[in-house]
Amino acid sequence: MASPSKDNAASKALDSLKNHHRSIDVVRIFQELITGNRAALGEAITLIESTSEKHKKPATDLLSKSLTVSGRSIRIGITGVPGVGKSTFIDAFGTYLTSIGKKVAVLAIDPSSPISKGSILGDKTRMEKLSMDKDAFIRPSATSTTLGGVARKTRESIMLCEAAGYDIIIVETVGVGQSETAVHSMTDFFLLLMLAGAGDQLQGIKRGIMEMCDGMSITKADGDNRKKAEFAKSEYTSALHLFPEKTDGWMPKVNTCSALENNGIEETWKMIQDHYHWMVSRNIFEQRRHEQDFEWMNETLKELVLDQFFQRPEKMKKLLDLKEQLLKRQITPFQAAEIILKA
Amino acid sequence: MASPSKDNAASKALDSLKNHHRSIDVVRIFQELITGNRAALGEAITLIESTSEKHKKPATDLLSKSLTVSGRSIRIGITGVPGVGKSTFIDAFGTYLTSIGKKVAVLAIDPSSPISKGSILGDKTRMEKLSMDKDAFIRPSATSTTLGGVARKTRESIMLCEAAGYDIIIVETVGVGQSETAVHSMTDFFLLLMLAGAGDQLQGIKRGIMEMCDGMSITKADGDNRKKAEFAKSEYTSALHLFPEKTDGWMPKVNTCSALENNGIEETWKMIQDHYHWMVSRNIFEQRRHEQDFEWMNETLKELVLDQFFQRPEKMKKLLDLKEQLLKRQITPFQAAEIILKA
Repeated sequence: MASPSKDNAASKALDSLKNHHRSIDVVRIFQELITGNRAALGEAITLIESTSEKHKKPATDLLSKSLTVSGRSIRIGITGVPGVGKSTFIDAFGTYLTSIGKKVAVLAIDPSSPISKGSILGDKTRMEKLSMDKDAFIRPSATSTTLGGVARKTRESIMLCEAAGYDIIIVETVGVGQSETAVHSMTDFFLLLMLAGAGDQLQGIKRGIMEMCDGMSITKADGDNRKKAEFAKSEYTSALHLFPEKTDGWMPKVNTCSALENNGIEETWKMIQDHYHWMVSRNIFEQRRHEQDFEWMNETLKELVLDQFFQRPEKMKKLLDLKEQLLKRQITPFQAAEIILKA
Repeated sequence: MASPSKDNAASKALDSLKNHHRSIDVVRIFQELITGNRAALGEAITLIESTSEKHKKPATDLLSKSLTVSGRSIRIGITGVPGVGKSTFIDAFGTYLTSIGKKVAVLAIDPSSPISKGSILGDKTRMEKLSMDKDAFIRPSATSTTLGGVARKTRESIMLCEAAGYDIIIVETVGVGQSETAVHSMTDFFLLLMLAGAGDQLQGIKRGIMEMCDGMSITKADGDNRKKAEFAKSEYTSALHLFPEKTDGWMPKVNTCSALENNGIEETWKMIQDHYHWMVSRNIFEQRRHEQDFEWMNETLKELVLDQFFQRPEKMKKLLDLKEQLLKRQITPFQAAEIILKA
């Protein structure tokens, strides 16, 4: 999702932070940010993504300020398996949105694989039109060793994009079952992109994700593929009826679309708007956001509690002491954990 | 995976626990357990799965005793998407193993979906032959609200099965990307079952799981499907070569099998044995188990730390106090979490 120019902007912003770390001017960044200055937005996100201790305080200050002017956007999570045409869809969808006067920000959650620590995205996604669009802001995924870390930084980036006046925030994730829950918990509408002609086994895999979605678009519905896409639409519409009703009562909608022929893109936006008005009219919109904030607080608290515990030297000493006993099978891992807890 | 008779056994064992909770005779259960008494094994697992406070001490005692006689088995994790024929494969594979004199235990990890809290397995899997086999023990998944909880109970069940003399432990999981890491972290060999003819998009999804596997079997390689299976075998063999080398240096093997025609089952066992001898000869087998125990201890410790924190009334009070401020957007979720931590 990174175009070279974006990477450059990020690296410039980082350099700027490094050179002037003694005097990060939060007031200046914030004032530029709320005028919609893209460089300031890039700088702000780089600041909150920084793992440096000295950036912690200014980052927190900036977020507090941004909080007062954020929240006024529709946040859309988009997922789908590699090959479904996610970038192409977002490129067309985002371009449509800017054409009707919206400002669009695209963020990505890309958890690394637990083994190779590498990216699971084979190649960087591309959004050719949108990356040239002055009303669009595209930011590659935050990096972190944990999904929780990536998720927190993405949530914070959403706040900053909103403060900068972006009224549609798209959070993209790769459909492998790990990060969908995180994206679902930070967006208002969760869109699942599906391919026509994927077998039953694929539906099986996506069941947990299908349960989460508010809408589904069958991609690549063009040329010879159109008929198959229409069939998939009716299949998935039936399938969605088999799931337990969503807690908010919304019945997910399915459509077909083609980024190539520019079909169904506007319809997808209409689906999202219908859902938005439906939510607002039932006071569910704000309620869902409140629940998300509360959940976010809980997750952050858990991370902080664990960080604090594992920083205590007496606990770490005990842990290393017990390692030997554990390996000799003199105690169970559970007993070892209990001893360390009480140490 | 539950046959009615197993459910009955579990419910009887639970009744027996309830009626005699004042005098759970850990010594008696343990002595019966190590003679291979199946009822005692069922009772032991029910005891460690119990969430009742009064069962905690006897459960810990039983595990400590079992630790001294456990560890002598090959632990095999088996995963695959719904529809791949997991139960049918395990039925045939387990029956083959008992026919060559092994005692086989089958445990399952079945994480519930985060939304509906229901099982993601559409219907209960069945193992007709194995469930009648006197040398096989089949236990349905432990239930818990968290994957961590299920995983811990499964690890403990493995220990108990080993203490009861089972020398092959199969841990089955549904291939949706959540529980594979947990199963991988408690087994010696991780077998991925795959269907022939699944498209590229499916391979994309399974990439993270494919990286974890030590071997792959293409199922349903019978009748008209045989050719497709052979093709898939060569495809996946090439695909596996594209992944980064596993840390232990093992190159995963691929074969085809048919539970229907009883083909390739013995070959799968040979694959697992080859891996076992390869691991043992390089001293990796014990090392991997040690790492798993250490990881298990770490995970347990994290759970205990969080439990302890969230039981403190002053923290809970502060959490409820801040909820209001949070909902009014006066503080960020991150700030709220920090305040609760310091409360």
